Amino acid sequence: MEKEVKVIVVGGDGFCGWPTSLDLAAQGHEVVILDNLSRRAIDLELGTESLTPIASMQDRISAASAIGAISWSQIDIATEYERTRDAIDHHRPDAIVHFGEQRAAPYSMIGDRQRRYTVDNNARGTHNLLSAIVEIDPAIHLVHLGTMGVYGYSKEFGRIPEGYLDVTINSTGAETDILYPANPGSIYHMTKCLDQLLFAFYTKNWGLRITDLHQGIVWGTETPLTVTDPRLTNRFDYDGEYGTVLNRFLVQAAIGYPLTVYGTGGQTRAFINIRDTAQCVRIACENPSRDDRRVRIFNQVAETFGVAELAARVAELFDVEVRPIENPRKELPSNELEVENDGLLSLGFDPLLLTDGLLTEVEETVGKYRSRIREDVILSRARW
Amino acid sequence: MEKEVKVIVVGGDGFCGWPTSLDLAAQGHEVVILDNLSRRAIDLELGTESLTPIASMQDRISAASAIGAISWSQIDIATEYERTRDAIDHHRPDAIVHFGEQRAAPYSMIGDRQRRYTVDNNARGTHNLLSAIVEIDPAIHLVHLGTMGVYGYSKEFGRIPEGYLDVTINSTGAETDILYPANPGSIYHMTKCLDQLLFAFYTKNWGLRITDLHQGIVWGTETPLTVTDPRLTNRFDYDGEYGTVLNRFLVQAAIGYPLTVYGTGGQTRAFINIRDTAQCVRIACENPSRDDRRVRIFNQVAETFGVAELAARVAELFDVEVRPIENPRKELPSNELEVENDGLLSLGFDPLLLTDGLLTEVEETVGKYRSRIREDVILSRARW
Repeated sequence: MEKEVKVIVVGGDGFCGWPTSLDLAAQGHEVVILDNLSRRAIDLELGTESLTPIASMQDRISAASAIGAISWSQIDIATEYERTRDAIDHHRPDAIVHFGEQRAAPYSMIGDRQRRYTVDNNARGTHNLLSAIVEIDPAIHLVHLGTMGVYGYSKEFGRIPEGYLDVTINSTGAETDILYPANPGSIYHMTKCLDQLLFAFYTKNWGLRITDLHQGIVWGTETPLTVTDPRLTNRFDYDGEYGTVLNRFLVQAAIGYPLTVYGTGGQTRAFINIRDTAQCVRIACENPSRDDRRVRIFNQVAETFGVAELAARVAELFDVEVRPIENPRKELPSNELEVENDGLLSLGFDPLLLTDGLLTEVEETVGKYRSRIREDVILSRARW
Repeated sequence: MEKEVKVIVVGGDGFCGWPTSLDLAAQGHEVVILDNLSRRAIDLELGTESLTPIASMQDRISAASAIGAISWSQIDIATEYERTRDAIDHHRPDAIVHFGEQRAAPYSMIGDRQRRYTVDNNARGTHNLLSAIVEIDPAIHLVHLGTMGVYGYSKEFGRIPEGYLDVTINSTGAETDILYPANPGSIYHMTKCLDQLLFAFYTKNWGLRITDLHQGIVWGTETPLTVTDPRLTNRFDYDGEYGTVLNRFLVQAAIGYPLTVYGTGGQTRAFINIRDTAQCVRIACENPSRDDRRVRIFNQVAETFGVAELAARVAELFDVEVRPIENPRKELPSNELEVENDGLLSLGFDPLLLTDGLLTEVEETVGKYRSRIREDVILSRARW
């Protein structure tokens, strides 16, 4: 085992945060979750619910004691700065993993209120963590969940590198690498681009050590740890705002609802299984960035697929129809996508690739909670 | 005269906002100021004061009725969103000029509290305006005060263009122009880089029309309008946080305090006189951006000078000593700087260049209020 570390996981109650917290604890690391329970509050706002029944945070923490050392405080890092700083100062972690952002693109595009909440919460929360780290101990390693969506999908930029793009300045002929030009597709994605500028400045000025993980679209739900106790069950979102595309297809398949492909389905995206999210974040914590002059950026992805291709695969496997619908989003009707992911691979990341077996395994979980599926939340209410 | 427009000036009580508001009103435009009086509040926080005695906002507005139509509401656009939106909806302006940000680099680097205030206030305020414009009328032209400090001072990037840099992507050979890579030197400058990403996304997604004016260092204090009534007097900051370099030199010269040059004084910067700030912003309002696909970016500068060169000129003119002190900032000891400013020139901007006559005119204002100068606030308290 790697050296044990102490990790604060901000947003450890969420879809990615919870299984990651369990994975860290199972490897002997000490985990302190800070979470404001906002994901559960947004379910109340939208009238949605996880397909899988999830336990209260109190019950999750009780059950997690069988896995390892995990504690939890209800703290909002965006609006409760003093409590956030005090918690970091009290625990003096080796690393802070930052999942504490509003993470759904469609939610961020519903309207004025959601746009402003997403920007206020995400920008302020990230900056509060940075400012607190400078105050308390600049050696704390910050591991942030970014998104592949910061890059956009311009063909002219070629294969997507890990964060930095090699360019030649036309006027001077100088060759240099620059932070990949931001091209976000939603307010949510834009906030992750804001985060990148915050990280770059704090690293440049105070020598903070930061790892930004640009994650692909997550699919799957359970991990080997979340199935060990019903109270450890992970959430499964299938609604039009928070459900990610492959998970939504699997829910649609379970009830014979035609798979809703946006437009041509020619969008190619990068994917990663939830088990790999946990694995990658743990790898980042165990191998802190040693670079105090520039942010370490990794693409946290396993493989890429076209949306139509994914739909066809699910349709064939579970004998359901595909129905193209008008794309509610502003995005290219089709794109190519090649992504580098050497950074995490070089640290030992062993990606789980999509197989019929894995799809069937998720479909079994979905089938178990079939009666909880509500058709009326499947379609996205956001239009942009 | 150009067609008259209705303009909301956010931050119209500030050093640049007030003379700009008067200039707009004098040209027959209708001006509505929204200001939270934060600049005056920060003076209280720092124990500083404008060298020139400035009237209350109530008295300023009374006196301004002799110039044109100016009204004022005390509104904080960052924390009072509903009142901000209602004011915009009520007035339905043609343009909103956005000076409403914490604008001092040294202030933003004093410590934790000032860092967080600067990010929270600036990012949230800008985003609130954008979100409100989408809700109320996407045709409202947003004119924002940016800063030359978004560009940084990398020699390899050559002459600084107006916002967009021509590059070749090495991997594909594609030539394109990208938003100039952000390289801010302080938390304050970083917030203007965040603003750029907000503007780019709102323009791309909602077709907003935005002009971002990357302004150089402002010097001078009065304009032909601010001297027409003592209640219209503009503020003059000379303290280490809010005083800009040339203005500080002029105050130091007035009391025989050696001119404090940071390090070698080899820093080359772009400058603009306060009268030109007013002129340029008015030109931008009178000639709205017609581009609803990309932000219109202008460099709002008249000329460039090395800091040591400026110090030498002031020292000779007013017979005072120059004293290099340790640079409290992280910045290059020296740099070259060439800046394009064709955009505003093409719309009629007629820059006021630095002359001994103009320096002497400012020095006369300083001399008039010599007894108000407090030596103890001259040096910056921020170190970075």
